[in-house]
Parts: sequence; C-alpha cells; structure tokens
Amino acid sequence: MTTLSFSKYHGLGNDFILVDNRTSREPLVTPAQAVALCDRNFGIGADGVIFVLPATADTDYTMRIYNSDGSEPEMCGNGIRCLAKFIADLEAKESQIIEGQTENQPRSLPHTYSIHTLAGTIRPELRPDGQVKVDMGEPGLLAQEIPTTLAPDNEKVIDKTLEVAGRSWQVSCVSMGNPHCITFVEDVEAVPLHEVGPKFENHEAFPARINTEFVEVVRPDYLKMKVWERGAGPTLACGTGTCALVVAAVLNQKCDRQVTVELPGGNLEIEWASSNRVYMTGPATLVFSGDVNVEAAGR
Amino acid sequence: MTTLSFSKYHGLGNDFILVDNRTSREPLVTPAQAVALCDRNFGIGADGVIFVLPATADTDYTMRIYNSDGSEPEMCGNGIRCLAKFIADLEAKESQIIEGQTENQPRSLPHTYSIHTLAGTIRPELRPDGQVKVDMGEPGLLAQEIPTTLAPDNEKVIDKTLEVAGRSWQVSCVSMGNPHCITFVEDVEAVPLHEVGPKFENHEAFPARINTEFVEVVRPDYLKMKVWERGAGPTLACGTGTCALVVAAVLNQKCDRQVTVELPGGNLEIEWASSNRVYMTGPATLVFSGDVNVEAAGR
Repeated sequence: MTTLSFSKYHGLGNDFILVDNRTSREPLVTPAQAVALCDRNFGIGADGVIFVLPATADTDYTMRIYNSDGSEPEMCGNGIRCLAKFIADLEAKESQIIEGQTENQPRSLPHTYSIHTLAGTIRPELRPDGQVKVDMGEPGLLAQEIPTTLAPDNEKVIDKTLEVAGRSWQVSCVSMGNPHCITFVEDVEAVPLHEVGPKFENHEAFPARINTEFVEVVRPDYLKMKVWERGAGPTLACGTGTCALVVAAVLNQKCDRQVTVELPGGNLEIEWASSNRVYMTGPATLVFSGDVNVEAAGR
Repeated sequence: MTTLSFSKYHGLGNDFILVDNRTSREPLVTPAQAVALCDRNFGIGADGVIFVLPATADTDYTMRIYNSDGSEPEMCGNGIRCLAKFIADLEAKESQIIEGQTENQPRSLPHTYSIHTLAGTIRPELRPDGQVKVDMGEPGLLAQEIPTTLAPDNEKVIDKTLEVAGRSWQVSCVSMGNPHCITFVEDVEAVPLHEVGPKFENHEAFPARINTEFVEVVRPDYLKMKVWERGAGPTLACGTGTCALVVAAVLNQKCDRQVTVELPGGNLEIEWASSNRVYMTGPATLVFSGDVNVEAAGR
C-alpha cells in the first residue's frame, strides 16, 4: 500500500491536491495516479495535483502540476496561489518544530517566493492578509495573437461586432497566453451561458476556439463576470480570463486599472500596471489534510 | 478552528465522509456544516456524512446520515456498507493499540453488526473478503405500493406496456421502500438515458414519480443496468434499484434468484431469498483519512 500525505487547497473553488515533493526531483505520483486521485467519487477529488519539488539554482522551489485528465500544463494562476500558501504552511510547521533556530523563524510578510515552473520563473507574493499576488504577465492584444479574424492581423480587437446565436454582440479580445473574448452586458445573470457559450467557443472567427467572458460593470472599480471556458464550460474561477476582461474593460474605458472582479467562486483583485504587466491577487484556502491509499483511489 | 477527523469511503462511487461520533449522542457537525463538507470544490466532497454514534440497549452502534443537501434520510444501502467497513477499521486499529487484551482482538469474519438507524435495526455482515452484505427488506409488488396506475391497486405490475417518448416499453414495477420501474433491453448502452429518463420519472402513470432502471440480461446469473434516479438523474450506483430490478427479472423469468449486477460504478451481488427478503452484497472502499477545518469548508 502506497500512502501519500497531501493537503487540499482551493482558490475560489478551483481545487488542488498539494503534495510535499521536496525529497524527490520526480513527482511522487504518475499522471495515471493523478487522474485516479482527482476523481471526485473514487478518489480525493480535485481539478489537479500540484507537487512542490526541490529548489533550482536560482529559485526557492519547483512547481509541477498534473490536471485531472493527466495532462501537464505549464502553469495555473489559481494553482500557484495554493502552492504559495501550502509552502508557507509547510515552512511555518517546520519553524515550530525546530523553534529557537534563527534560520527557521516564520517569514515576515509580505514575502515573495521564486518558483521554477514550465512557464519560467513565477514569483507569487504572500501578503499579510493571507492573499497571494501573482504576476500574470503582459496581455496580447493583436488579432494574430488571439488568434481571431475579427480584425486585421496587426490590429487590436476592441468593440467589434460578432454575430452569435442570431444576435449581435460587441466584443473585445485579449490573450493572456490563452485566448479570451469579452462582452460587456447590462446584467450578467441574464446571459444564457449554456446556450451562447458553446457558440462563442466554436465560432469561425476564432480558429483556436476561445474562452468567453461576460462582464457587468457594477462600478468603475467593481466588475462582475461569468465565464465559459474552452473545453470546460462554465467554471467557478478563471484567472487568465479575469485578467483579460480587466484589460478589455480598461481599453473600452469602462473601469480603473485596479479593480475588484466578482467571479462565481469569489473575488479577485486585478491590477493592470503601468509596466503593462497584469497582477492578480486572491485567496488560497486550506480545507483538509490527509493520507490517501494511492492504489485504492480511482475506478 | 474546529478540526474534525474523518475517513472517506465509497461504495461503487457513492461516497461518504465517515465520522467517529462515539463520544457524543449528537452528530459532531450540523446539517449546514455537512452541506459545506460535502461541497466537491469548497469542502471534502461527498454524497453524504455518516456518523457512528454510541450503542443503544440492543444494538452495537447507532448510524445517522446527512445527505449533501443537509436532509436526513432513514437509511442508505451503499452508506451502511461503508459504515460497517469503517467500524471494522476503527475496531481493528483499537485492537492493535491495546494488543494482548483478549476483549479487543480483531473480530473473526464473517461478523454481523447490529446498527440502530432511523429505519430500524439494520444488520450488515462484514465478510472475510471485505465485502458487506446488507438485508434490504422485502419488495412491494402491488400497484398501490409502488404507486402506479399501470395496474389495478391490488395487482402486480409485471410486463405492462408504457408509452414514453413516442415508443412502447414493456415495464415491471417494484418498491424497495422507494418506487422503481424496470425495463429489459437488448443493449443497455444504447438506451438514450438523458432523453427518456426524465420522461419516465415524470410520467402520469407514477403519481410519486419513479426511479427508472434499464437492464440487459447478459446471462441468467449476470445482469447489466443503467439507472435514472428520481431527483438525481443518472448515478453510479443505486442499491434499492439493483434489488428491485433483480426481483423484476425473477418475476419475468429472466434470471436466477442469486445474481451479479453490473452497475456503472461496479458490481453488486443480489439474492432474493426464499424468505422473500432481498440481500445486497458489495464493496466499501477506504480512500483517505484526514483532518478538516470545519469552518474553512464550503462557500
């Protein structure tokens, strides 16, 4: 019997099994085992398994992640918030165990970790209130970067008309490494997401398909969104989508560059800085820790 | 912070949070907390929380269960298998701790526990192979017991014609405390469950609505089923439905009185004994144990 210790965290309902993998340079479970562990009836249940591996020469730790389908994404915005919180909790536990040793005092906050990922070095900042701030990079605005045929290749895609489900929608498109199509609406609750979502996703204007966000501007500093994720449908929280819609809202002069966005799973703070980088700040919550019999998980 | 120790078991994918509640006559969590703990993104994730409470005068233990919606059912066939396994695991752990004391030796199997439930005393039998056998009671066969209008009140409902979704179906009805409508088909995989399930469930012939099972007779000792549960849709495992369909198959002379049934979540052994009682035998699997921060669970 292979027993694996783990902790379960979520970021706005996007949930992950966190594994202390610092003793090995390879993840302690295989992709197939990750699928079994992520099964919500036959396993622990999660959107993915995140491994904290040893430091590299110029980072504090290494992050690997397997999705619930066994694939390995480069990075995950909600996931790296959970990873930062998990590392802080691990370090705090160890500082208690060997109390008195000055090199293991609890860290003073805010503290920025440097994490090696397949998408390069990411630096999540753990803040005194327990929220985690993540640099999500620079937006791509040109039609060819999305990609979309809604504008010539080297032009931005702002407030263009798109025909979907027999209706005209005014859309803007932003890439945050993945493609997003943003529509501003009067009432986000009134959008028939299950009907129009798939039609946006597979519209011929988007050759790589698209993630679709509907956004209600409550105040210039407070937006409310619903999302239809490419390949996943409606989700509780989409970090890149939330960054993309704030960029689109600023470009449409609908909001400030620092804004709160209400997602189905909770709130994120987004800042599109003058450096052109987008920063996302949000929670990461420990729900439970346990020991799993890896062979018993899954079908 | 309220920390609760728990173990997560499943019976064919029907999954439960098991709580050692032997120190208190009241469940250690409220129905509202159970809803939060059962949330699959913001909590532990489960179909229900099962509490093992102290013995009564004439039983070994007491079972209480909260569903994921906070309601309290009388009993649950998959749940009581998990409870029996959980109790055996608890007892085994305690017998190791105080080894040498003859009154705490591991039980020899098979062993039958006597469990006080809101549905009366239930006696799950833990067998040497780890499977659990449960007495599911006697079937109700009369039209008024289902209830259905497909036959006169005091007649059985065997091989009757029902018009659903523009097609004629030959159906039989059985109550196992809840109503079931069983249809035998050539190929259970070919049944358009999402299309016809809701139409069976809400058919005017069933004033209390109905659970619907489609059954393929692979051999006289091996059936294959799919189920549309009343109020829940397609599920991985329905214990009462599996008992009901075996009763219907025997009455239609399609199978033996002792038979294996393949459900979407795995196999159950069903015996309709000469005593008229139906016995269900199936697995209960421990996947993980942990400690949950009760306040952090839920939205």
